[in-house]
Amino acid sequence: MTFSGFRRLTIIGTGNVAWTLGDAFRQAGYVICEVFGRDKSKAAELAQWLGANVANSLTGLSADSDLYILAVSDDAIQLISSGMPDVSGMVVHTSATVPLEVLSRRFIRSGVLYPLQTLSRYRKIDLSDVPFLLEAANEGQLLLLSDFAGSISSQLIHANTETRIKYHLAAVFACNFVNHLYTVASSYLMDQGLQSALLEPLMRETTAKALEKGSINSQTGPALRGDQQTIKKHLDMLQMLPEQQKLYEQISLMIQNFHIKTNEQL
Amino acid sequence: MTFSGFRRLTIIGTGNVAWTLGDAFRQAGYVICEVFGRDKSKAAELAQWLGANVANSLTGLSADSDLYILAVSDDAIQLISSGMPDVSGMVVHTSATVPLEVLSRRFIRSGVLYPLQTLSRYRKIDLSDVPFLLEAANEGQLLLLSDFAGSISSQLIHANTETRIKYHLAAVFACNFVNHLYTVASSYLMDQGLQSALLEPLMRETTAKALEKGSINSQTGPALRGDQQTIKKHLDMLQMLPEQQKLYEQISLMIQNFHIKTNEQL
Repeated sequence: MTFSGFRRLTIIGTGNVAWTLGDAFRQAGYVICEVFGRDKSKAAELAQWLGANVANSLTGLSADSDLYILAVSDDAIQLISSGMPDVSGMVVHTSATVPLEVLSRRFIRSGVLYPLQTLSRYRKIDLSDVPFLLEAANEGQLLLLSDFAGSISSQLIHANTETRIKYHLAAVFACNFVNHLYTVASSYLMDQGLQSALLEPLMRETTAKALEKGSINSQTGPALRGDQQTIKKHLDMLQMLPEQQKLYEQISLMIQNFHIKTNEQL
Repeated sequence: MTFSGFRRLTIIGTGNVAWTLGDAFRQAGYVICEVFGRDKSKAAELAQWLGANVANSLTGLSADSDLYILAVSDDAIQLISSGMPDVSGMVVHTSATVPLEVLSRRFIRSGVLYPLQTLSRYRKIDLSDVPFLLEAANEGQLLLLSDFAGSISSQLIHANTETRIKYHLAAVFACNFVNHLYTVASSYLMDQGLQSALLEPLMRETTAKALEKGSINSQTGPALRGDQQTIKKHLDMLQMLPEQQKLYEQISLMIQNFHIKTNEQL
């Protein structure tokens, strides 16, 4: 492996992103020197896992790391970065929505390292194809950051804040909202005393098909067929669930509008 | 392998379900004697694939099959079944929404064989864990049909018409609507000149995580965190896309309502 000039890392934060990135970079050969978290016991737990020290305070952070990764909630980035000592290492955050400027007006070297993926401490996933959206204060720093991120992923995208937020918005639809549709479907079946597990092969295949053929070519169902009788029947069945009923009506209409328009363009 | 008492099959219909089931049962050792389709060239193509004869007319269908599978659109089941000759073999349809009675008032032996899966002629999938929802006119016929479906799947569920429609409604959310959310996300990125392919690892992981931990435990995102600033930013970005904006607002609200309620119940 090659090193990016970075070698010693500090992790700030103890959530899912901190655990996942900390672990990945440790395995890629970097030394995690210090961990800081507002919750001391969580910080100790992560530090132990990473073979790092626990920083007792923000102001007391060791100033000799090459890179500081702020894997904290969007709201906390401003506050935490202003509480940090002046450091000469690069300081990056992992947020989709926080502008680079929050860091670049405070530190000599700064950047953004945003993984376009849903990460969980307890779910180990392969990061090698996860897109990392990178931004840095200048070209040289971007090269350093790319080299660093390239040690865990081969999907590196240079994206400014505006572009990063667009990817995040799309991700909300493709991840957060998709997940809630799974919840709507499985909750409905459970409330009816039926087996939500029966949906599993369908969930798997729906996503596999969309990945293979593209979702536009994979659309099926009553809305696409214009099967008004089934749509009406389903809406009747949802009469006691007004939110779900409204959602059913709206997405059905969107499917019809989208595919009519798409077909007209062919 | 064991036979279900059925041995010779007739397939009526030439769409995705006809191709998938015809092929699966042929591979399971059944003999497909005849194929009928309103489109003669499509019927010939499927018949050739299955090593079957083409029936020239509905009324001219051979009466010596053990099982007739009506894999046609919901609207066509009534019409086609009334045009068939009187047969002593079992006649089943593959529709979620059409009641068994449409067949049982016409034939001595009848049933429903509904696969809870999105099927495509050009996408070969493993049917062995696909739930087949079965219904038949009486207990003996249900046993025969179960034995038959058991030759291609190990997930057999006895479900009457009312229950079958409920599973179908849930499937519309977990498959058709999920697929459209993928379309919303990828179309948005393409319209912005960005790379929709970057969403692929996220789509894969979102579904894998929901399958492993359950979707209720997998929910993440601005709506769940109550991150109003990001929600507002995203809604602003969707100002020129009123359908998507409305959908974003509505699912975000549903996520918040669902998880507040769920947490209160804990």
